[in-house]
Amino acid sequence: MEPPEHLVTAPEPHAGRPAGIATPAVPPPDILRCAYMEIVVTDLARSREFYVDVLGLVVTREDEDTVYLRTFDEFIHHNLVLRQGPVAAVAAFSYRVRSPEDLDRAEAFYRELGCRVERRAEGFVAGVGDSVRVQDPLGFPCEFFHEVQHVERLAWRYELHGPGALVRLDHFNQVTPDVPRAVAHLQDLGFRVTEDIRDEQGTVYAAWMRRKPTVHDTAMTGGDGPRMHHIAFATHEKHNILSICDTLGALRRSDAIERGPGRHGVSNAFYLYLRDPDGHRVEIYTQDYYTGDPDNPVVSWDVHDNQRRDFWGNPVVPSWYTDASLVLDLDGRPQPVLGREEPKEMAVTIGADGFSYTRKGDTERGFKLGNTL
Amino acid sequence: MEPPEHLVTAPEPHAGRPAGIATPAVPPPDILRCAYMEIVVTDLARSREFYVDVLGLVVTREDEDTVYLRTFDEFIHHNLVLRQGPVAAVAAFSYRVRSPEDLDRAEAFYRELGCRVERRAEGFVAGVGDSVRVQDPLGFPCEFFHEVQHVERLAWRYELHGPGALVRLDHFNQVTPDVPRAVAHLQDLGFRVTEDIRDEQGTVYAAWMRRKPTVHDTAMTGGDGPRMHHIAFATHEKHNILSICDTLGALRRSDAIERGPGRHGVSNAFYLYLRDPDGHRVEIYTQDYYTGDPDNPVVSWDVHDNQRRDFWGNPVVPSWYTDASLVLDLDGRPQPVLGREEPKEMAVTIGADGFSYTRKGDTERGFKLGNTL
Amino acid sequence: MEPPEHLVTAPEPHAGRPAGIATPAVPPPDILRCAYMEIVVTDLARSREFYVDVLGLVVTREDEDTVYLRTFDEFIHHNLVLRQGPVAAVAAFSYRVRSPEDLDRAEAFYRELGCRVERRAEGFVAGVGDSVRVQDPLGFPCEFFHEVQHVERLAWRYELHGPGALVRLDHFNQVTPDVPRAVAHLQDLGFRVTEDIRDEQGTVYAAWMRRKPTVHDTAMTGGDGPRMHHIAFATHEKHNILSICDTLGALRRSDAIERGPGRHGVSNAFYLYLRDPDGHRVEIYTQDYYTGDPDNPVVSWDVHDNQRRDFWGNPVVPSWYTDASLVLDLDGRPQPVLGREEPKEMAVTIGADGFSYTRKGDTERGFKLGNTL
Amino acid sequence: MEPPEHLVTAPEPHAGRPAGIATPAVPPPDILRCAYMEIVVTDLARSREFYVDVLGLVVTREDEDTVYLRTFDEFIHHNLVLRQGPVAAVAAFSYRVRSPEDLDRAEAFYRELGCRVERRAEGFVAGVGDSVRVQDPLGFPCEFFHEVQHVERLAWRYELHGPGALVRLDHFNQVTPDVPRAVAHLQDLGFRVTEDIRDEQGTVYAAWMRRKPTVHDTAMTGGDGPRMHHIAFATHEKHNILSICDTLGALRRSDAIERGPGRHGVSNAFYLYLRDPDGHRVEIYTQDYYTGDPDNPVVSWDVHDNQRRDFWGNPVVPSWYTDASLVLDLDGRPQPVLGREEPKEMAVTIGADGFSYTRKGDTERGFKLGNTL
Repeated sequence: MEPPEHLVTAPEPHAGRPAGIATPAVPPPDILRCAYMEIVVTDLARSREFYVDVLGLVVTREDEDTVYLRTFDEFIHHNLVLRQGPVAAVAAFSYRVRSPEDLDRAEAFYRELGCRVERRAEGFVAGVGDSVRVQDPLGFPCEFFHEVQHVERLAWRYELHGPGALVRLDHFNQVTPDVPRAVAHLQDLGFRVTEDIRDEQGTVYAAWMRRKPTVHDTAMTGGDGPRMHHIAFATHEKHNILSICDTLGALRRSDAIERGPGRHGVSNAFYLYLRDPDGHRVEIYTQDYYTGDPDNPVVSWDVHDNQRRDFWGNPVVPSWYTDASLVLDLDGRPQPVLGREEPKEMAVTIGADGFSYTRKGDTERGFKLGNTL
Repeated sequence: MEPPEHLVTAPEPHAGRPAGIATPAVPPPDILRCAYMEIVVTDLARSREFYVDVLGLVVTREDEDTVYLRTFDEFIHHNLVLRQGPVAAVAAFSYRVRSPEDLDRAEAFYRELGCRVERRAEGFVAGVGDSVRVQDPLGFPCEFFHEVQHVERLAWRYELHGPGALVRLDHFNQVTPDVPRAVAHLQDLGFRVTEDIRDEQGTVYAAWMRRKPTVHDTAMTGGDGPRMHHIAFATHEKHNILSICDTLGALRRSDAIERGPGRHGVSNAFYLYLRDPDGHRVEIYTQDYYTGDPDNPVVSWDVHDNQRRDFWGNPVVPSWYTDASLVLDLDGRPQPVLGREEPKEMAVTIGADGFSYTRKGDTERGFKLGNTL
Repeated sequence: MEPPEHLVTAPEPHAGRPAGIATPAVPPPDILRCAYMEIVVTDLARSREFYVDVLGLVVTREDEDTVYLRTFDEFIHHNLVLRQGPVAAVAAFSYRVRSPEDLDRAEAFYRELGCRVERRAEGFVAGVGDSVRVQDPLGFPCEFFHEVQHVERLAWRYELHGPGALVRLDHFNQVTPDVPRAVAHLQDLGFRVTEDIRDEQGTVYAAWMRRKPTVHDTAMTGGDGPRMHHIAFATHEKHNILSICDTLGALRRSDAIERGPGRHGVSNAFYLYLRDPDGHRVEIYTQDYYTGDPDNPVVSWDVHDNQRRDFWGNPVVPSWYTDASLVLDLDGRPQPVLGREEPKEMAVTIGADGFSYTRKGDTERGFKLGNTL
Repeated sequence: MEPPEHLVTAPEPHAGRPAGIATPAVPPPDILRCAYMEIVVTDLARSREFYVDVLGLVVTREDEDTVYLRTFDEFIHHNLVLRQGPVAAVAAFSYRVRSPEDLDRAEAFYRELGCRVERRAEGFVAGVGDSVRVQDPLGFPCEFFHEVQHVERLAWRYELHGPGALVRLDHFNQVTPDVPRAVAHLQDLGFRVTEDIRDEQGTVYAAWMRRKPTVHDTAMTGGDGPRMHHIAFATHEKHNILSICDTLGALRRSDAIERGPGRHGVSNAFYLYLRDPDGHRVEIYTQDYYTGDPDNPVVSWDVHDNQRRDFWGNPVVPSWYTDASLVLDLDGRPQPVLGREEPKEMAVTIGADGFSYTRKGDTERGFKLGNTL
């Protein structure tokens, strides 16, 4: 069996470091995994209805302004915090670190970078103890914590699982203008690249990076940013994802389905993208692969490969490329969005100036929407 | 629980009979089910590769010009005949009837209608005995037979089933300019309507009709015809259909996927549409519902309902509306295609002159492609 | 491909008619399908909790003494009636017939057989009109009806479907001492055999019989009878059945699982057997095959074939062979149970006097419980 | 929601250290994951047929005496080595370590323990470089390596995946007389306990231990040992496991199915146990949960809980408790098997002296085989 041409795997690239973000001399915190996202929603009741009544996330705790939600396999207090606020945005991308001491490391790491750092022994949200929040060099509000309230892991509580049960927070996805710059910074923070999308000129359109041994804890998607592209929850099986579509159809809310379901090329996972009532994008995701070995092969996809984002060649809808959520600074103000200067993936793959192929070298364009949209 | 507005169910309509096709005085044959389709392909080896190596249909018999294929649950000789020929087209929509005497009924029925009728005691293809072929009043080449060679039902032979095993021929789908006229004729032939797509002005865009107690043995799709829209095979489960997509992606043949996978509104089945090497459309289909009671409720869908053809609101690609296969007359010449005079579904649902809604009465258009394509 | 030895298929047998039940001169009613079962339960609240809260059947109507339940794809009033009573038993096996006139045929058919027949224009239960109930020659209380109240078919109402949604009543299963005698009577009533279990001496241990084109509307299981072996509901997919097991485990009610899940040899369906709070047996079933052609091949399984009842060779638990529900006469008194005189399947397949094989001709016994229990 | 009684979760126990194995002063190697098992088979062709033709593992390399196999998601040379030999046994439980230096650590660690250690720069099998093999204090032959040949990760090569595709090596399971002693040693080696089975007297019957963040890389099962209980491969979904059963049934090899399929209580995974032609036990496994946080709650199951090993209460067959494979010393001689002195799980749960409950406190025994076998 010859490896197929489109799967060019290689050791993790050590490209020339892009300008702009220094590598701190101090060690980074030991990040375990993406743990939760705090998002601001403009109508808490409506958002609660979406995440709880439709998607079936479990309410750990709630009060007038805030709802704390978790997945069925989770044992920490929450994976998602909905907070009522005036502007839909992301307040924190939060990572759990291995030990309390890693908070000191996080603080030192970002202070050396000159970032604004806040630390609260009592945490920024309920259920979480000593925490560090920073505005990272890419403009994202990131949090690190170790202390957390344990709650019941509902993995065995099948009487509570609906047909589309969300069992785990899988990853974040962030939009940033300069992907190699962002990747280099995350590598400094201890992340490793698992896959990326490139072109022959060396432009990097997106990169997937992990701490836990899945394809990612976060991905860097090239575009106007800093913005949040999506948060992704995992199901056990593909039919769980299909049942979410069926439920949305039955509720006459199929317009919450933005893209999919489908099979990703990148990550090999089965996916679905939804938009919550504020337009925050939520991915439902299942079945990527183990990436925990240090020499895990990096998979690079050609940006013109029509199967890179949907392995079945189904088109990426334009809104998926263009829309994303604002992110807040540590004072709760929306961060300004900077334009991407390099070519954009949508532009180079569809429409007058772009192209995609199903088979590299094919000269005729097929009938697929990906080519003709 | 209130029945949702979009599911208007009613007894089977006895609309005023459209002009043009008389109801024979003689009784129709007792049709059991759609049994096989004979299609002409322009490159037999390439088509065999698609249906056998990729889709996994079982070869019952083959010779230089012809390949006879069946599904895993089938016990009659074949469900699909590929025949090498100069023009890609359909040579026969073939139905099995209950008894040998039903062939006499078929002959008399169509002779009374003034149709050309041919009967061959030895059958028109291998594996099938006494057969009647007609050019029906709608212009389609139809066959009726009872005698057939039995072959092993491979339902229990799991060692031969691939991950996308096709277990049954489910239905045909035919394109015809005047749907009510076609429906009235098929009702005369003993078919019953299970679902249809209409608008408030009474235009019928498509109708689903059955003999066996599934949603259909054939459907009549409004458009320029007579043409063959698709042939559909059933799998056991939805993941079987997804695996066909995965295989096509792996083979770098995702451009064979035209539409889907998705959930139909009409029929409630899970679906995928493929195009074979000649462009003949093949549906993979699973999980509609039992329709065998004589008072089975007919479901009428509003043509502007964006969930009628995809319950998740995903867009129907234009080629799915416009492309279809030629059909042959009994001498093997392509039938001329007559234009549909009534409004076309694509025109009234997308683009400048059409519209679709997710929720009836919603005034704003969402971001779904179905609205904006 | 050679047909495997264990699958001996043949036309439907016309064995010498067993003594005892005459064939009426009048035609039988045209039965569409098994439609509902009325069962007596000793604690209605507890039974309702099992069928509604655990299994998720839909309540169409209920009052102090009775609960009417249906499946998600059903459009007639109910598929199961729970009636509070002093002794757990079956009050009616109810079949829907094609037309009102078929009730007259049913009445005449059973009167000619000398059976007790009752007819009520207003029906015996809510939601059903003109009905005939008989005590059939085998001792079972059977009902025939055509008129029935239509209710919403909830097939598209996915927001109501749990992970183990029951979508259709599939079949009944009856225990009777003399299987060939029962089969001959059901053939007179218009049923057709699809599969059976036999031995080389010609003893028939069980037979599957259908009206609708699935493997059965009812099966005749050899044993002390008349008794009801089980009622079976269908799901769409196998994972739906697994989820019912998971839910029962989560509720600490796994002792409601009697046998399975597994794959049947007979019928090729995926199955699970539960016991309700009164011990009534309920099967959950999915994915048998189309049997609607008049020459559908009958599959005969050797009683010693260890894969006949579980294709994976997993053992049949003794209670599954020995336990069954009483049936009532038309006055509501339990019918006396007559012993089976021919060899019993459990005796000839396990234990000191019986044997089962995985491969015919193998002399050594493997470690499978089916051999050693 | 109250946590159910049976799920007593707690921080990882630091029980009083059992006598017998010292904790080395030197640090252990940093183990990434269980990587492969080398097993001796007595008929290589027959074993190859089982693992390749039936189970679908991928052949990376083979010669006259040896077959190297891997799973579809794997990128290292192999996950299983079959080696022809005179006595069916396990030659090595092999773990991958993070860096080449970890081999020095492994060597020092076991030398300090007084174990026999062998190191080969060229590896003990093809595809693997510098390796350390030891006979560990529990009597098992263990291997550690880092250098390994990369091969194509076939995750995207769906055209090669059968319906039961094995995508990952998940874990080993070892039989040892004294579980707490074994657990303490593995904790010294850096493993962490995720779940265990205990009784109220404090006897530990089995423990699950992990390096990668799944429920286990290996488990310690109490019994006569050292012996190998099983090796487990993962599929993506539950239907993949069911299809393996279907294939074995179709091949008339259902007697290779020893136990299952079912849902584990411990691990919450879906499982199936097979026996290969030599009786080596193979588990097929899917969908446990993430355990990577250092404070991951340990789940302790009561040995009398009938849902601990099968969440649906289906019985564990006796052979599953009693049978296991011999393990070899570094010279290839079978290790002597020492008897377990503490109570055995089978004895305390079934039969005259044991008992299991579905609901703690229930006094009556149900009909489940687990109670009555």
